[in-house]
Amino acid sequence: MSGDVHSIPLIRAGIDTYRQPVVYMHEDCHLCRAEGFTSLTRIHIRLRDRSIVASLNVITGADWLSPDRAALSDAAWTILGARDGDLASFSHAEPPGSASAIRAKVYGKRLGDDEFKSIIGDVLAYRLSDLDLAAFVTSCAGDRLDIEETIALTRAMQQAGQTLEWGKGLVLDKHCVGGLPGNRTTPIVVAIVAASGYRIPKTSSRAITSPAGTADTMEVMTPVALKIADMRRVVEAEGGCLVWGGGLDLSPADDLLIRIERPLDFDSDGQLAASVLSKKAAAGSTHVLIDMPVGPTAKVRSVEAAQSLSARLEAVAEAIGLGLHIHQSDGSAPVGRGIGPALEAHDVLKVLRCSPDAPLDLRDRALDLAGALLDLAEDDRGKGRQHAAELLGSATAEAKFLAICEAQGGFSEPQIAPYHAVETATTGGTIASIDNRRIARIAKLAGAPGRKTAGVLLHKRPGDTVERGEPVYEIHAETSGELDWARDYARSGPSALHIGEEP
Amino acid sequence: MSGDVHSIPLIRAGIDTYRQPVVYMHEDCHLCRAEGFTSLTRIHIRLRDRSIVASLNVITGADWLSPDRAALSDAAWTILGARDGDLASFSHAEPPGSASAIRAKVYGKRLGDDEFKSIIGDVLAYRLSDLDLAAFVTSCAGDRLDIEETIALTRAMQQAGQTLEWGKGLVLDKHCVGGLPGNRTTPIVVAIVAASGYRIPKTSSRAITSPAGTADTMEVMTPVALKIADMRRVVEAEGGCLVWGGGLDLSPADDLLIRIERPLDFDSDGQLAASVLSKKAAAGSTHVLIDMPVGPTAKVRSVEAAQSLSARLEAVAEAIGLGLHIHQSDGSAPVGRGIGPALEAHDVLKVLRCSPDAPLDLRDRALDLAGALLDLAEDDRGKGRQHAAELLGSATAEAKFLAICEAQGGFSEPQIAPYHAVETATTGGTIASIDNRRIARIAKLAGAPGRKTAGVLLHKRPGDTVERGEPVYEIHAETSGELDWARDYARSGPSALHIGEEP
Repeated sequence: MSGDVHSIPLIRAGIDTYRQPVVYMHEDCHLCRAEGFTSLTRIHIRLRDRSIVASLNVITGADWLSPDRAALSDAAWTILGARDGDLASFSHAEPPGSASAIRAKVYGKRLGDDEFKSIIGDVLAYRLSDLDLAAFVTSCAGDRLDIEETIALTRAMQQAGQTLEWGKGLVLDKHCVGGLPGNRTTPIVVAIVAASGYRIPKTSSRAITSPAGTADTMEVMTPVALKIADMRRVVEAEGGCLVWGGGLDLSPADDLLIRIERPLDFDSDGQLAASVLSKKAAAGSTHVLIDMPVGPTAKVRSVEAAQSLSARLEAVAEAIGLGLHIHQSDGSAPVGRGIGPALEAHDVLKVLRCSPDAPLDLRDRALDLAGALLDLAEDDRGKGRQHAAELLGSATAEAKFLAICEAQGGFSEPQIAPYHAVETATTGGTIASIDNRRIARIAKLAGAPGRKTAGVLLHKRPGDTVERGEPVYEIHAETSGELDWARDYARSGPSALHIGEEP
Repeated sequence: MSGDVHSIPLIRAGIDTYRQPVVYMHEDCHLCRAEGFTSLTRIHIRLRDRSIVASLNVITGADWLSPDRAALSDAAWTILGARDGDLASFSHAEPPGSASAIRAKVYGKRLGDDEFKSIIGDVLAYRLSDLDLAAFVTSCAGDRLDIEETIALTRAMQQAGQTLEWGKGLVLDKHCVGGLPGNRTTPIVVAIVAASGYRIPKTSSRAITSPAGTADTMEVMTPVALKIADMRRVVEAEGGCLVWGGGLDLSPADDLLIRIERPLDFDSDGQLAASVLSKKAAAGSTHVLIDMPVGPTAKVRSVEAAQSLSARLEAVAEAIGLGLHIHQSDGSAPVGRGIGPALEAHDVLKVLRCSPDAPLDLRDRALDLAGALLDLAEDDRGKGRQHAAELLGSATAEAKFLAICEAQGGFSEPQIAPYHAVETATTGGTIASIDNRRIARIAKLAGAPGRKTAGVLLHKRPGDTVERGEPVYEIHAETSGELDWARDYARSGPSALHIGEEP
């Protein structure tokens, strides 16, 4: 045995560090001392045929870890597939192979295919620390990736995970760049497009910072955590599906980079294009419609920014052989009435069922997008929206939606939360605007997306008139405690709905 | 009470995250649920008159933390001055005020005085996450800080902590850019300069990644953790001191940035200049000598790199009113014989005592530096080295060194480790080179710098001839286990001393 590698039994620390592999060792651990491991040392841990690099936290004053054991964070435990008492080997981590490529990018050099491949390989093997990842993300921020580099990064990300194959013919897809609360068009679009006879094997994400993602909303009506074989069976039977993409290993590097990109929140057209298009290409799509809401509080804030991002997306899509259409939409206000998984599901079903009280703005957006996607797929363009409206109006889309849910494991009606708090107008007037950020926060404090029926139900939208004391929105919650927290917050500070002067 | 701020009692987690404030909360904690806190949420914690922003780790499967308590990492606990059971208030952290300045720098804009002040203020208030700090460090890497920005950053760092004042007259200082193992000239230089009548209130660091820092070496001979008042008393009595700077709050932002810069290890002339000169200016120095070893394994690898860095240091020093001289030296091999705190102290004392077996390379380097520093201070330049050699040869410097140690709390002879392992040559020939990195690693595995007498004692240096079986170096350790670890490592892989052909 060399002085470099030593073994020690593992225990589970039971600490969620959000995907960052962390190892905990006692300050009196002989291995720490012998190897000179100190806090934040990067340690290579090998267990059977798996290995990771984890950052060390040293236990200085707690009795839950003895000096002859090492504890792993939830992420490290899962990635290694560890079991209690497993003997793992520990050594100093060698510098990651892609360190020189990251360094070159930091110093402003252009990177090529091999260098992006090397970086993405190290991302997936958990060989890069959070600081390394932050440096890479920062080095690509703004316009520091050119078109060729964006294409290389997109290819490296796409090829690093699972790739779905659907055989000959068109495979349609859609993506929304910047989430507005309640903008839940996807289930409607998928139902219409599949009803028209096209294939649309849609994978969606769960909410990360918003009150609901499409996967969260679909989950209140049907199972979404399908394996690839089951997803394929649903698509072969119904032409479309609405499943959670997180478990399918499509462009998995994207998920690991997003963990770092989100808190840093630097705009980067290159990284956004690589993120979206690598996922779509890995999912086997041939034609993709991008919904790009533009507005002061949306992800894309101006027409100029939309043009620049659109040019980047179009160039990358062409290079990797994806058909692409970008649909700019109004990003100035939330969409529909419900905000939260079940509340948004109710909106979706009302549109599909052509209920008299269906939210018209959600219906219009879904028809715009479905129409644009049909136009993208068909040769005689321009008739897509009319065709989409027919499929929706004839209940063909509704039937297709229910058939997809049945194929995924069965349809359930969304529930209603047991606790409601009605917020009323403190003055009369016209609703001038709605603070998206504040409304989303109230929905999250009420429990969304973890509590499926929790959230906010809007009674009024911008342009509506309201009298003093009239209900403007309701908070829905599954426990009285969460209802109180959300209402306390809603009543502190300015109202989420701004009421202008009486017209 | 608004929905934003809630209180919960604190306990100490006993986890060392290396200066990164982390808060641990149970997944069933009502506050986590109500506020929507999830792993890595940035949480503002207020206790009495102190506050920090910490990152959340969620306890998912451990029983050491109950749902009605929050635990703090060692760093968070110390910064808040917390006591067991203290009731602290928790809320979502607002984005740091300097976020827009960091974003601007990431996008390649130039920053001004106020923006650097804002960033350094947020660094010191622990309002920036490690990811934010990595982004800032990355955005300044390479040559992305121009001279004006470097000056602004230096001033912001210098002014953000304690500043020492020494009254009228010269205050001399020295700094070494890139540590070679065993390059322990500082105690000798301070003794000579103080013996010549100049003031040299030297503050030094402990080792971070090396087997010894000057503070570690001095600590085996005299107390170094002095308060400012005691340091002042020593300097007033003896003209110089050799204390640990870590507790004096001089340019404290530097320590927090170094924590991030070191693992990323991007070259940045701007950040290096700001780091070194902000500390020197805060320490009240008027004239600074920079030792800049140049060599393939040193920090500065080429003459061109040395010229570029020197130009930057000179421009910043002039702008902030510091006299500066840069002394380029040979950075191709370790210096002296000992590597490790006590072993280096023995080398220092042999030079000061003019022992027949004093390492001549260490003596020469110390005289070069002391001479250059005296030249920098005096008007009739060029006689400094001769003057330095006289002070050393006449034992005046030795007497001054002992007097400084007495004033700091008393002098002790350095000890010798109880366990030695002699490594011998496996072949005869001439020592071609010594692998600095490998020798340093062996010294650290043997226990340095934590175990004061541990380390490596070189018997041979590059250019020496050696016969097969002749000792080339000794490993020193305080326990037999550490001796074994270090020897196992030393005997695995290539030897740290490369022996060429028999001449």
